[in-house]
Amino acid sequence: MSINTFGHLFRVTTWGESHGPALGATVDGCPPNVALTPEMLQHWLDKRKPGQNKNTTQRREPDAVEILSGMFEGKTTGTPLQLMIRNTDQRSKDYGDIVEKFRPGHADITYWQKYGIRDYRGGGRSSARETAARVAAGGVAREAIKTLAPNIQLTGYMVQMGDKTIDRARFDWDQIGQNDFWCPDPVMAAEWEEYLTWLRTKDHNSVGAVIEVVARNVPAGLGAPIYGKLDTDLAAAMMSINAVKGVEIGDGMAAAALTGRENADEISMGPNGPEYSSNHAGGILGGISTGQDIVVRFAVKPTSSILSTRQTITKAGEPTEIITKGRHDPCVGIRAVPVGEAMMACVILDHMLLHRGQVGENQGQIG
Amino acid sequence: MSINTFGHLFRVTTWGESHGPALGATVDGCPPNVALTPEMLQHWLDKRKPGQNKNTTQRREPDAVEILSGMFEGKTTGTPLQLMIRNTDQRSKDYGDIVEKFRPGHADITYWQKYGIRDYRGGGRSSARETAARVAAGGVAREAIKTLAPNIQLTGYMVQMGDKTIDRARFDWDQIGQNDFWCPDPVMAAEWEEYLTWLRTKDHNSVGAVIEVVARNVPAGLGAPIYGKLDTDLAAAMMSINAVKGVEIGDGMAAAALTGRENADEISMGPNGPEYSSNHAGGILGGISTGQDIVVRFAVKPTSSILSTRQTITKAGEPTEIITKGRHDPCVGIRAVPVGEAMMACVILDHMLLHRGQVGENQGQIG
Amino acid sequence: MSINTFGHLFRVTTWGESHGPALGATVDGCPPNVALTPEMLQHWLDKRKPGQNKNTTQRREPDAVEILSGMFEGKTTGTPLQLMIRNTDQRSKDYGDIVEKFRPGHADITYWQKYGIRDYRGGGRSSARETAARVAAGGVAREAIKTLAPNIQLTGYMVQMGDKTIDRARFDWDQIGQNDFWCPDPVMAAEWEEYLTWLRTKDHNSVGAVIEVVARNVPAGLGAPIYGKLDTDLAAAMMSINAVKGVEIGDGMAAAALTGRENADEISMGPNGPEYSSNHAGGILGGISTGQDIVVRFAVKPTSSILSTRQTITKAGEPTEIITKGRHDPCVGIRAVPVGEAMMACVILDHMLLHRGQVGENQGQIG
Amino acid sequence: MSINTFGHLFRVTTWGESHGPALGATVDGCPPNVALTPEMLQHWLDKRKPGQNKNTTQRREPDAVEILSGMFEGKTTGTPLQLMIRNTDQRSKDYGDIVEKFRPGHADITYWQKYGIRDYRGGGRSSARETAARVAAGGVAREAIKTLAPNIQLTGYMVQMGDKTIDRARFDWDQIGQNDFWCPDPVMAAEWEEYLTWLRTKDHNSVGAVIEVVARNVPAGLGAPIYGKLDTDLAAAMMSINAVKGVEIGDGMAAAALTGRENADEISMGPNGPEYSSNHAGGILGGISTGQDIVVRFAVKPTSSILSTRQTITKAGEPTEIITKGRHDPCVGIRAVPVGEAMMACVILDHMLLHRGQVGENQGQIG
Repeated sequence: MSINTFGHLFRVTTWGESHGPALGATVDGCPPNVALTPEMLQHWLDKRKPGQNKNTTQRREPDAVEILSGMFEGKTTGTPLQLMIRNTDQRSKDYGDIVEKFRPGHADITYWQKYGIRDYRGGGRSSARETAARVAAGGVAREAIKTLAPNIQLTGYMVQMGDKTIDRARFDWDQIGQNDFWCPDPVMAAEWEEYLTWLRTKDHNSVGAVIEVVARNVPAGLGAPIYGKLDTDLAAAMMSINAVKGVEIGDGMAAAALTGRENADEISMGPNGPEYSSNHAGGILGGISTGQDIVVRFAVKPTSSILSTRQTITKAGEPTEIITKGRHDPCVGIRAVPVGEAMMACVILDHMLLHRGQVGENQGQIG
Repeated sequence: MSINTFGHLFRVTTWGESHGPALGATVDGCPPNVALTPEMLQHWLDKRKPGQNKNTTQRREPDAVEILSGMFEGKTTGTPLQLMIRNTDQRSKDYGDIVEKFRPGHADITYWQKYGIRDYRGGGRSSARETAARVAAGGVAREAIKTLAPNIQLTGYMVQMGDKTIDRARFDWDQIGQNDFWCPDPVMAAEWEEYLTWLRTKDHNSVGAVIEVVARNVPAGLGAPIYGKLDTDLAAAMMSINAVKGVEIGDGMAAAALTGRENADEISMGPNGPEYSSNHAGGILGGISTGQDIVVRFAVKPTSSILSTRQTITKAGEPTEIITKGRHDPCVGIRAVPVGEAMMACVILDHMLLHRGQVGENQGQIG
Repeated sequence: MSINTFGHLFRVTTWGESHGPALGATVDGCPPNVALTPEMLQHWLDKRKPGQNKNTTQRREPDAVEILSGMFEGKTTGTPLQLMIRNTDQRSKDYGDIVEKFRPGHADITYWQKYGIRDYRGGGRSSARETAARVAAGGVAREAIKTLAPNIQLTGYMVQMGDKTIDRARFDWDQIGQNDFWCPDPVMAAEWEEYLTWLRTKDHNSVGAVIEVVARNVPAGLGAPIYGKLDTDLAAAMMSINAVKGVEIGDGMAAAALTGRENADEISMGPNGPEYSSNHAGGILGGISTGQDIVVRFAVKPTSSILSTRQTITKAGEPTEIITKGRHDPCVGIRAVPVGEAMMACVILDHMLLHRGQVGENQGQIG
Repeated sequence: MSINTFGHLFRVTTWGESHGPALGATVDGCPPNVALTPEMLQHWLDKRKPGQNKNTTQRREPDAVEILSGMFEGKTTGTPLQLMIRNTDQRSKDYGDIVEKFRPGHADITYWQKYGIRDYRGGGRSSARETAARVAAGGVAREAIKTLAPNIQLTGYMVQMGDKTIDRARFDWDQIGQNDFWCPDPVMAAEWEEYLTWLRTKDHNSVGAVIEVVARNVPAGLGAPIYGKLDTDLAAAMMSINAVKGVEIGDGMAAAALTGRENADEISMGPNGPEYSSNHAGGILGGISTGQDIVVRFAVKPTSSILSTRQTITKAGEPTEIITKGRHDPCVGIRAVPVGEAMMACVILDHMLLHRGQVGENQGQIG
């Protein structure tokens, strides 16, 4: 219901601006007795952290997370967790240009139109820096999932940069952590490297991307039809990430081009329950998980902060030009990978709890 | 928050099964003093109604809506509206095949796995018949919007059937109501007609589609960042519709292939406020409306109910085959058009109310 | 969150006006596989039904409930239940007096001030008739509780009418159903009978009452601190009932007069777990159930519809007088008993589900 | 919906434990452009702060609040405010006794039974220290109310300590800030002083109290029937405060003893709108404000932390005794006054926003 909160039973409220004293996440509804340390969260924050290689923004912040509440003797207590990250790299600089001008493609103009006041420093609340809080909350969700269902695995990776898409024939889970792009296709990773270097250093441009997140070994039965479907909540979670313009489940938009014979995943009985001949559905039927891999994809637009002159207007309505200097990611998709994973973790944990609360032990058996 | 409810201040709860006595929508939060008649809602229900032409299911139901509460002397009172539609075409038939077998691509198996009980008659709660209730609620939202902001126009149409996509150069708003497909491109409409006839009568197959819904003249400032963004709520609304597998805002998934220079919509000052050189963003920046057209697209998969034999299992886990007989839409995308419009209407009204509640008169002026 | 909805996981939305075509409750979140029939709900509706004896309003309605959805072969399916009650006794009468005048003590004036429109017929939405929908929903909750925890017993009764309070020394559970007042003290029941007859026939007046509702055998651990405490939700549930002006848990307001030594319930170990030397707390500590009886009381004010002339104003702001004719309860407390029970049932079921969703199997053991 | 959150549009989530590093409130939905400083919040925190005089606990903490987000250049931005208070007086002490034993009258046993883990240090999350976060949030609400409706005044005071109740004939608003008890009756204040000194120093006991909070100049029309009534939300808000066992609106429980002729507040027309002959209703009819003073009362039980031996059990189920040493309030009612005011402020602001969002400009006029 609230604006800065998501989740039904596992509820995450993020707060904070890019250049304020701190940002963080208030996490309510985490089950008690989950072993948790700041280091566990830091692991995921480090994955998202800027300045790690030349392909991401050179802003450098430790993004160190503190857990201020909800813990006792190394375990969660069932009370709210406060995860706080201090902003340390708040350069005292002249914000002159963006004080009065609206950057095209950014939320400067709409925040002004909505609220009549905006924190222009680094984009304020609309900065992608807000996603650090999501990643911290996602780390909590991961540990809770681990306690409840240790087999579940959540993995995100990039499948497209600009018009360059991975070759699924070369897909290798082990490659994902081996390059700067969380790319499962090593050939494509090399191609992206070259392309992004050119974009960044020569073309002074940016580019969009597609990220895929997969959850494996999720039990059947998660999802709360009709309006809390698992795919509905995943779509909302991903679309809420900065710069995301499209979300797909399973075959996604390509499902439109299929016929019924091509699309339906046929069912057979395997040793551990139902099995499927294919996974066009992305692991979700009628908004409920089938037990197959849950497959979500989302597209991020290219960042609008580029070193090229753009036409815009001032708050006074005067025409003007703007060049967005500063330290920006040439492809925000790279750092969106851990964010997508975090959102997936939060949604899945939430639905595990919701399913337990709604349905309890009533799950139907097959065979 | 709840499972069968959506919306923040304009809250719609749908209820009912395909073959139960009735279905409907409980609509809470409609502003008072909105002129409303059952006929106004019937107009939209008739648009979605099955059996209107040979391209949709031959199930015939009047889908007559009754307003049981929330009205006084032709106006809404601010109390909940109960919109009820009786199910009349509940053929007394032998459900034998689907009683024990799970239809591939349908929610039969997941409802069983989740709840341990399922109303197999016509898909029960997971039937697309549930969308009639959405269309009725959307009709209420349309009338409330008309009262609050008469200039807003909401229009849906099909842009793709199978792999056949409209030619935007032939786009004509006036054509949308002139064919069975809500297609703005008359040439493509004719092509679809031929293709669907073949699919239906010869190939005994079905096909997917892409629907686009556009809202024009929506004021700037709607949307509640970070987790109640306008695009977030639209994505959830569309993804909750039966068979939807992907949702796009503006350029959608194609944004991934663009560079920053291509993507950012440049801003200038027009006679009535800011204007944009293009609308890659689909009318939403940072989750807040810009005043440009709001453009949403969603893909529906082909219906899995086809006259072809499919492999599946029984509740007992035994392998078997199934052919889904019955009256089904060869392309559910056609009847998804008014459903998409209805969801858009609900989301936009909700955000008009929410914006008023959150921000009141504080909107920033430009120029 | 919504206005006409209450509950976290077991969510009840009531709808309908006193003199509209129907009223009812949309019940979402009921667990699947609960055996349910309309007769089970009718039992509780009959308890609340007007016109049953001379001590309640002579309006006569069958209050027959229909279950329109959410059921299959006699069991709940986990999808929303629609419980509808047709209004049959809508006398075609002249509403002249209350069309323009505001009845003192009623919501006529505030509904007008809030909404700018009001259904004056029988009080519209603000009529106590709305509570029939709650009683139906409470009947569902009772059956679900019976499935989950068969030992739980919920019982309401009147403990005070006007300034006449029962003698706890004469408290007898078996007496509660033996008189028109759900009174556990037969001596006081006789006294009330005499008093109410005089009030009704001679004094043309009405009187307030206090109702107590007790839940026995509720497991320890229910309640969601800090803002979803069991007592918080019970207080909200009872205060939302028409005419209620005060709510107490355990000792209630009288706790203010106690000292710490008097108030704290000492703990010992019994054969089935912790036992307490007393129950000042009303079965709730820190917002969580202790396993003791949960004791809630609420006061209803006397109905303002009396056959005495009262000063008021018209919509035009002119001073005037009004006598509220019609069929009214001289003591609305009598029919508030099943309503209080219903609200208690909904809250307890909701917290049983919520506890399961939040905490699962993590409950602490003692001994 | 969530456990540690309250409010519809103005949503407050409190977090933190008594002896953790910090506690605070995440405040979402505050309107933008409200002038705010930490000092404004500190004013109210100081009012609640312990150790200010001999009648409250001698724990001494500065309770200094930091605003970590949601502000820009001295004004709120419409994004979430994070209000953090560091815990400084975390004495490193031996918690031995309460580690294994459950203190009677405290939430020790129920937190254990619910969560299977509890932070026993100072009561952890169930400590009244949590109310500091509410007071900070209430300070934000007060400033927002001041911006929207400068005439509204919120005032709390104690009306009863033990069995000693103020004399309404001596009620003097100006006396409220002149004694340690926020008592409007100076004679009773002196009597309480003497009584509490004896309780604290000689009897080693504690005592309960009744607090009244009044909101003046609240506009007519606030409140969201049926389940978001103004009195419903106030009852929930007050009942959620630690140690509260009863809540009353207007005449409260005493309304039960009245007749209809006595109870209904007659209406006349005054220069500024409707006026009432009395205020039995406490400013609320049908859950909606009338424009009269809104009057809420709540009773707090005596603290169970007293220097007397009490019977209890250990986690192992063994019988034992406990004396709760430490620094405790002999009458927690004193410090509950600013907490009650804060809750009232939050609820009233929330309903001002909600009314705007729901009903907009449609309020009915009289005269």
